[in-house]
Amino acid sequence: MPPSRPHATPTTVTGLLDALPVADEAAIEQVRGRERRLTKPAGALGRLEELTEWLAGWQGRYPPQLQRLEACVFAGNHGVVAHGVSAYPATVTSQMLGNFAAGGAAVNRLCRTFDVRLRTWPLSLDRPAFDFTGGPSLSEAEFGESFSIGMDAAEQGIDLLCLGEMGIGNTTAAAALAHALFGGRAAAWTGPGTGVDGERLAAKRRVVAAGVRRHRKETAEPLDLLRRLGGRELTAIAGAVLAARLQRIPVLLDGFVSTIAAAALEAARPGALDHCRVAHVSAEPGHRLLLRRLGVRPLLDLDMRLGEASGAVLAVALVRAAVACHLGMATFDDAGVTNRDGG
Amino acid sequence: MPPSRPHATPTTVTGLLDALPVADEAAIEQVRGRERRLTKPAGALGRLEELTEWLAGWQGRYPPQLQRLEACVFAGNHGVVAHGVSAYPATVTSQMLGNFAAGGAAVNRLCRTFDVRLRTWPLSLDRPAFDFTGGPSLSEAEFGESFSIGMDAAEQGIDLLCLGEMGIGNTTAAAALAHALFGGRAAAWTGPGTGVDGERLAAKRRVVAAGVRRHRKETAEPLDLLRRLGGRELTAIAGAVLAARLQRIPVLLDGFVSTIAAAALEAARPGALDHCRVAHVSAEPGHRLLLRRLGVRPLLDLDMRLGEASGAVLAVALVRAAVACHLGMATFDDAGVTNRDGG
Repeated sequence: MPPSRPHATPTTVTGLLDALPVADEAAIEQVRGRERRLTKPAGALGRLEELTEWLAGWQGRYPPQLQRLEACVFAGNHGVVAHGVSAYPATVTSQMLGNFAAGGAAVNRLCRTFDVRLRTWPLSLDRPAFDFTGGPSLSEAEFGESFSIGMDAAEQGIDLLCLGEMGIGNTTAAAALAHALFGGRAAAWTGPGTGVDGERLAAKRRVVAAGVRRHRKETAEPLDLLRRLGGRELTAIAGAVLAARLQRIPVLLDGFVSTIAAAALEAARPGALDHCRVAHVSAEPGHRLLLRRLGVRPLLDLDMRLGEASGAVLAVALVRAAVACHLGMATFDDAGVTNRDGG
Repeated sequence: MPPSRPHATPTTVTGLLDALPVADEAAIEQVRGRERRLTKPAGALGRLEELTEWLAGWQGRYPPQLQRLEACVFAGNHGVVAHGVSAYPATVTSQMLGNFAAGGAAVNRLCRTFDVRLRTWPLSLDRPAFDFTGGPSLSEAEFGESFSIGMDAAEQGIDLLCLGEMGIGNTTAAAALAHALFGGRAAAWTGPGTGVDGERLAAKRRVVAAGVRRHRKETAEPLDLLRRLGGRELTAIAGAVLAARLQRIPVLLDGFVSTIAAAALEAARPGALDHCRVAHVSAEPGHRLLLRRLGVRPLLDLDMRLGEASGAVLAVALVRAAVACHLGMATFDDAGVTNRDGG
């Protein structure tokens, strides 16, 4: 899919980060004004109320809309799988794309349940990202191409965007990027992924540590670390997050891989993820650690660790519930219900 | 609504608790057998997989069904409101019943969003439960009547039952019952409810402490404490939980009030709530404490504190998602996807 604009470069991305729109406070105030009059104690719907404010604030309109919901799943392959870091062979990435197309994956069933349109992007699956222990995972041209594909996926007119990924080996890339961006111990960021343990988990940790040692010598710039360690699908996710912000599309991030990809933007420009919510905390241990570093509370905590936007699409249920309550509930006046203290 | 059987008595309830059905292990094994073949790493859908096992195990069939979902909301009034323990006047209980009937409450919008049928029971709203600081909240006859109404609400043929309540003053009753059943300090169980603080919260705590002191001198029997402290809607919830178990209907419990009502059964007979899941942890602080005592992990944690089954109906989204994935996903063989380690 050819991008409709010149490929992103470090300079153009930095320029965009300098001009991020902020939330629409007037729309948020309109949400709060109605919430106060709805037939419930103030604040009794908790984070559902906050979700409606978030949606209206970033969409920049009242009432917020939920007509066009999309889940974008970016897929890439990773040279580091040669080190035996995954329980599955790399061929599974393209096989799963076929499964998405046929409607047989978890995200297909979740999209159908919560009325979300699924789109998937195979990102040069026959050309895996380079093994980052030997050099950068992507050239600057490849980075720009993937970033731009992600940007183009955040199409104008989308009301809510769910972002996810598929890529055998990509929890290794995610752990490396987290370790590079946030420090700490490589082992703390590196978990079982699809299910490695024992010697394979130890090898995965060594790969993460070696990659980060090599590339942190070269740069501390977050987006350059994304290019060097993240590979194509993580880069595309970062592009989609940025383009969504520019177009006032609220974003639900999925698990560890999606969140760390987006966190590269946050590391480059604090506040860059303010239009995002993290849908769930994954069972992959690095994700909880990452959310703590970001100061983010996930919406769901269900021990899921599938990726493919599954947690993000599940959290759509909460957003739909929030908006249904906000727009559909009666006010105290409408319903003839006495407000607190008889007021 | 006249119950279709003689009113429950302590003897009949004890008899029923002696004959609780257990989960159907064969149905659970069928769930596990299919989950292992679905196109995802084993266990990657986390608690969604567990929800499918729970549903099939307690329904006692494979595949589990989600055709008829109901939310039952029991409403009662409480004499203890005379002590000024609530931010709202008692008239709000019946006003909210009108709001439920007109479709204007949060639970109406949630039921519509997740395709759940709502039924509500006003329980003698013009005869509030007696002020428990002066004597038992219900006579034995009133207890039997409310318990039986709850039992009848769990109609055969329901696939999943959401239980909730409405009742100005009922977090005071709930705190008293929790303190009576589980000990600890009255203040730890007694929170703001719909929103009291300062002197009114202090008064609420004194009411809870005084009621429990009085009734714990008389009995330590959990269901008798439910009668003495809980009032009509808590008693009906306990009845519904028991009848659901007997008819193999899985139950989603809502917040603090619903959970403590059900917990009286658990205190009387450990394991009595095995067919229940707690949908969410309420912002009412006693609920988190109670879940810790029960050793239960809630499905959602969204700072909600509305009651009226709102959290239970929201968690229906998770159950629907779980079943959609379980029944709709492709297997590795179907999809031509290689299983782990190329197997």
